[in-house]
Amino acid sequence: VSLPKFTLPAREPFPANVIALIGGLPDVRLFRRDLLARAYRRVLSRGVQTLGYGSEYGEPRLLRALTAHLSSARGVLAAAGELLVTRGSQMAFPLLARALCEPGDVIAVEALGYPPAWEGFRLGGAELRAVPLDRAGIRLDRLQELACRSRLRAVYVTPHHQYPTAVTMSAPRRQGLLALAERHGFFVIEDDYDHEFHWSGRPVLPLASADPARLVIHVGTLSKLLAPGLRVGYVSARAEVVERLARLRMFIDRQGDQTLEAALAEWLDDGEFDRHTKRARRAYAERRDALAAALEQHFAEGLEFELPAGGLSFWARSRLGMPVERLAELALERGVLIHPARRFAFDRRPREFLRLGFPGHTPSEIQKGVGVLAAIVKASAA
Amino acid sequence: VSLPKFTLPAREPFPANVIALIGGLPDVRLFRRDLLARAYRRVLSRGVQTLGYGSEYGEPRLLRALTAHLSSARGVLAAAGELLVTRGSQMAFPLLARALCEPGDVIAVEALGYPPAWEGFRLGGAELRAVPLDRAGIRLDRLQELACRSRLRAVYVTPHHQYPTAVTMSAPRRQGLLALAERHGFFVIEDDYDHEFHWSGRPVLPLASADPARLVIHVGTLSKLLAPGLRVGYVSARAEVVERLARLRMFIDRQGDQTLEAALAEWLDDGEFDRHTKRARRAYAERRDALAAALEQHFAEGLEFELPAGGLSFWARSRLGMPVERLAELALERGVLIHPARRFAFDRRPREFLRLGFPGHTPSEIQKGVGVLAAIVKASAA
Repeated sequence: VSLPKFTLPAREPFPANVIALIGGLPDVRLFRRDLLARAYRRVLSRGVQTLGYGSEYGEPRLLRALTAHLSSARGVLAAAGELLVTRGSQMAFPLLARALCEPGDVIAVEALGYPPAWEGFRLGGAELRAVPLDRAGIRLDRLQELACRSRLRAVYVTPHHQYPTAVTMSAPRRQGLLALAERHGFFVIEDDYDHEFHWSGRPVLPLASADPARLVIHVGTLSKLLAPGLRVGYVSARAEVVERLARLRMFIDRQGDQTLEAALAEWLDDGEFDRHTKRARRAYAERRDALAAALEQHFAEGLEFELPAGGLSFWARSRLGMPVERLAELALERGVLIHPARRFAFDRRPREFLRLGFPGHTPSEIQKGVGVLAAIVKASAA
Repeated sequence: VSLPKFTLPAREPFPANVIALIGGLPDVRLFRRDLLARAYRRVLSRGVQTLGYGSEYGEPRLLRALTAHLSSARGVLAAAGELLVTRGSQMAFPLLARALCEPGDVIAVEALGYPPAWEGFRLGGAELRAVPLDRAGIRLDRLQELACRSRLRAVYVTPHHQYPTAVTMSAPRRQGLLALAERHGFFVIEDDYDHEFHWSGRPVLPLASADPARLVIHVGTLSKLLAPGLRVGYVSARAEVVERLARLRMFIDRQGDQTLEAALAEWLDDGEFDRHTKRARRAYAERRDALAAALEQHFAEGLEFELPAGGLSFWARSRLGMPVERLAELALERGVLIHPARRFAFDRRPREFLRLGFPGHTPSEIQKGVGVLAAIVKASAA
């Protein structure tokens, strides 16, 4: 039996026992496992209802709690039928592509972005086209060109803190993007993956908070905030989109883990979610400062970056005199994981930038990791 | 913004507070919620490892425990890389179609079968063709015709207890099916959804237990046995197939719920899984007898069925003098849910058969439900 051709990439194995100076890995040591066990038990002790078949939209208690949370924390309003619970945000991507696209339809993505979302969209049948970025976000002139010459169904953006560059999309760019979407009739898929982590300036509300036409499809996750091992995300969008996602979800996965979803609903309702967020924000703010200080100390010359207004990583231009790919390779041999720009590039071409993240480690671990990088650069210059 | 056409069916709402004389609904009241809460807490108390990113193949402890279980309970041997944990068996279907099929490739299905699997295969890009059944299982002459005139990649079968007719595939048919698969180069997707519930005669081992060429893709689930709300299934197949499924799974769902998977691994290892199986088997055997007795009492004339060797339902030919669809409609108005044959028919045509299931209710509830059916038939004859 022969198998047809198959192009999906294999996962790179995550190296064990490294200092991972990367952005997307929350510190699960901050997570209150004892409280999760307790909430889980409480839900189960109440009855059998979370153990049977249920709604493909999500456990009703979590839908209610998330609706209230998104309204108060982000100004995103979801009426009945406008919210779906997914497995992390990852599940949203193939479902969205399948709901929005026919063969040949296009989803635009940022030229530097989040490859697992791209693969998800492709899996759902979308053609992808990359649109360049500038310092205000995705370039609207180029997006407009694309809208004119292809069947553009949606654009996927990360406006709060652009993934991976951490740039916040400017207010005029936001207005322009929504106007363009309305004019050309495409959706805006807003991945608000780290809404909780904004460090300076006024909190920026999502695109979905100022979208009377409901052109924005707001995607979020609790996994990145609480623990990646808890696969709970959500999509808020107009009801006709959410209904399609729900139908699709039926045949991929039937429904979520209702017991876990009910437990997390309790956390949203009783304040434990907010307490965790505060705990994490405090820890990450300290780590951010630690990474900035360590980079300042060791790389005042070689790495150029601005402290971003939010997010869990810095985007640094390298003037180290050695390719960032080579630095990453040598660092990994010495137990430090960093991500060169190429990893995030739609065109797969190297660029002399690094994404350096801080959430996963304590200040002293961060200091140690940056020290290793400095030693490598020094040795190579010698 | 206009949406492209979309053909996926909506879920029929499951009616509340009915006596559901259907096959697929295990009784979650038999499930030890207290023990699940305890196992979950035990796993969490050991450390953070189930809360981070992990393997897309499944939690390693569950892979080990399932490997041992499938080997001892079913004679299905899985080497390293030949087993994947999914969300229920449902997730296996779209992943398998996507892994095995290019556009235009065909998966054959049974003419009476399990529509959620069909939708899953379609979602993964397969073309479906139905093959008729006879009393020994899927008809090989018709399957062979199909293999000769189409790009047949796989056939989806339910050999243990055919879904929905409960027929066990005969030994010669099994040998013939594997020989045909080898000759024509297609896979056999064996959905062993209720392996644990065999009532009479020798236990029948799955196709996958006698398949040195590894042409069988063995799909199973713990959800049907334990509780539908726990979405844990698995696929055992040759490594090159499982690797594709794992890569696909990454971009749909990243990974399973590792905490739950580790808890279920403990149950497999410490005997709680077997204790639950015995408990359920005892309860369901009693309910099977209750349904048979109630049908005998009320429908000695109108319904014709054989006690199947296994499974959780009877397949009954109706000679009631009213269409089974009409009976189902009237029954639902009076609080009893039954499934007419049409629901399982690939061609969507009605047939004068009913699937009557017994796992979800106690003997007295079953007796009451059958009484309601009898009263309806009597009133309509009057």
